[in-house]
Amino acid sequence: MKIKYELLKTDNNCKARHGIIYTNHGSFHTPMFMPVGTLANVKTLTPEMLKDISSAIILSNTYHLWLRPGEDIVNKAGGLHKFMNYDGPILTDSGGFQVFSLAKNKKKDITEEGVKFKSHIDGTNLLLTPEKSIEIQNKLDSDIAMSFDECPPASASYDYLKNSLERTLRWAKRGKDAFNNDNQSLFGIVQGGPYEDLRKYSATETVKLDFDGYSIGGVANDGESKEDMYKAVDYSIPYLPTDKPRYLMGVGEPIDIIEGVIRGIDMFDCVLPTRIARHGVAFTKYGKLHLRNAKFKEDFTPLQEECDCYTCNHYTKAYIRHLLVCNESLAGTLLSIHNIRFLIKLTEDLREAIDNNKVLEFKEEFIKNYRN
Amino acid sequence: MKIKYELLKTDNNCKARHGIIYTNHGSFHTPMFMPVGTLANVKTLTPEMLKDISSAIILSNTYHLWLRPGEDIVNKAGGLHKFMNYDGPILTDSGGFQVFSLAKNKKKDITEEGVKFKSHIDGTNLLLTPEKSIEIQNKLDSDIAMSFDECPPASASYDYLKNSLERTLRWAKRGKDAFNNDNQSLFGIVQGGPYEDLRKYSATETVKLDFDGYSIGGVANDGESKEDMYKAVDYSIPYLPTDKPRYLMGVGEPIDIIEGVIRGIDMFDCVLPTRIARHGVAFTKYGKLHLRNAKFKEDFTPLQEECDCYTCNHYTKAYIRHLLVCNESLAGTLLSIHNIRFLIKLTEDLREAIDNNKVLEFKEEFIKNYRN
Repeated sequence: MKIKYELLKTDNNCKARHGIIYTNHGSFHTPMFMPVGTLANVKTLTPEMLKDISSAIILSNTYHLWLRPGEDIVNKAGGLHKFMNYDGPILTDSGGFQVFSLAKNKKKDITEEGVKFKSHIDGTNLLLTPEKSIEIQNKLDSDIAMSFDECPPASASYDYLKNSLERTLRWAKRGKDAFNNDNQSLFGIVQGGPYEDLRKYSATETVKLDFDGYSIGGVANDGESKEDMYKAVDYSIPYLPTDKPRYLMGVGEPIDIIEGVIRGIDMFDCVLPTRIARHGVAFTKYGKLHLRNAKFKEDFTPLQEECDCYTCNHYTKAYIRHLLVCNESLAGTLLSIHNIRFLIKLTEDLREAIDNNKVLEFKEEFIKNYRN
Repeated sequence: MKIKYELLKTDNNCKARHGIIYTNHGSFHTPMFMPVGTLANVKTLTPEMLKDISSAIILSNTYHLWLRPGEDIVNKAGGLHKFMNYDGPILTDSGGFQVFSLAKNKKKDITEEGVKFKSHIDGTNLLLTPEKSIEIQNKLDSDIAMSFDECPPASASYDYLKNSLERTLRWAKRGKDAFNNDNQSLFGIVQGGPYEDLRKYSATETVKLDFDGYSIGGVANDGESKEDMYKAVDYSIPYLPTDKPRYLMGVGEPIDIIEGVIRGIDMFDCVLPTRIARHGVAFTKYGKLHLRNAKFKEDFTPLQEECDCYTCNHYTKAYIRHLLVCNESLAGTLLSIHNIRFLIKLTEDLREAIDNNKVLEFKEEFIKNYRN
């Protein structure tokens, strides 16, 4: 079965929408944030920990799983869900972004066929094509697969972007033709940088190919400005169908999630909450806390008083600081739980705000408290 | 309240005994293995994970907590239980072993007062005395504290050991006099290397000081032979009272736990199950498995078929190997759960064997299967 999107409510004052996505591994409400499980695990967390904080869908990385352990091993294990003991919905990316960001020495050769580059692990020559990306994802058997796209740098010129998105459209078609998994859905990806006409063209042409959902890419590659990110969304959304989910790739800063929701985005993913956790940083409604700071040495309060997560229910800043100072990985676990919960709770609050037509007020209130 | 030991049953064919220890944080059956939570956490595990595998009491390290975060911070947090969110029994060691094993450049100056040495973290000059060790432990507020003892090297001469254990006896008396926590129990430590007369003397004199339990030390310092370990136990046990628990310090190899139980030991601790876990090694009834080995690449069976732990219920060798190869710390978590469960289950099986007077048969059966 393919996924199905049901629109429940649109905010009266903006494009924010509350919906449900039904998958073969359960349904979840949107807007929703997806934590990243790069190598078939969300770093330092068990699936039970994710469920406990109402995390409903995770993202895993096709490029990484292609290299290790290899899609055939995952397939023999019975697919990614069984391999990693996660029975909720899983979305896999296409590998396109990793080719862009991880290729050894950042060198790559983009041709019509696909992208040639060297493995970031051992320098092996690799070729990723639209067909190969889909074949890997079909074998991983995630719930939602992504079309293979080129992720041009933020510095790319208009002409480069135009040529690139034309090729990405041809790649999307090739991937769709190669696609062969009835229990998996496939999203198309809209590119075009910060240019209105390119986004319009990319969105319109991608929608013609009729995907199960649509992603907006090229907003979190290598330092795109927030303005350009918002433009990319603003210029793409009007051309996407209302009965399919919309996914803004690589975005996880709280304010960006809010701005994305206001513009009509349903799904987000980012390594941010787990990565900053391992570096000792916690999200709070007042901004980010750097827990290694000596001022938390004797702070026996939770990371955030109102937070309902396991970490805030049981541990103090002083304890987490102690673990961090001693390089105990449990600190990363506890902070990851909290940070993911923070973003999941943010989407829960946004859904409630949508139901009450108050997303714009919610944003003002949030900005008033949140520093940095 | 002090702890209380209740003897339930002794095996008819050896000294193995099944008992219960009552503490202010719950009771547990013995023989029991205690996982080590060096820095106020059992590395990579939550307290809930420990409870889930019937782990009933943990050990934490006085020396490490003295240095980081400091006993006063733990005390201000409400004691070690509250600080680390663990409401089961906790035993703290005295710091004596760490002074012996971790002192910077292994240099230390042992005087009647105590031990002068340099911090393994920053080289600071430190002095640990019997009174200081007890003061720290009183503040940590563990359920069971240890007397401060000297841990002589395995190579120590008879004369050195004799002088050392005399001093350890004087230190034990000083520690007991300084002890000031009505909700905490204090164990004395028997030393004397592999010498029958020294063990007899140390045990007899330590018992005269009337502790809440007795430890046998000097068996896992730096390469003592198994023979010497068994001798140390054999020569000490006859002089220890039957109504107090006996704890063999630093021992965690399955066969050594069995041999210790046969000789009348109730409690064991060791970093082994969690340390080898982080290095990719799993206990099984057939011996240790090195999970990084390529032969497990497509092995979709659990670490051990009969194991009832979370890891064996949900994950395969292939998945754990994948996590290890990718340096994902979740591998250490999953293997730690399994390895601790393996030793806890071993003590459960030993208790059942004691109840049926079959500990010696249990040992033969175990040895038949277990390789390495």
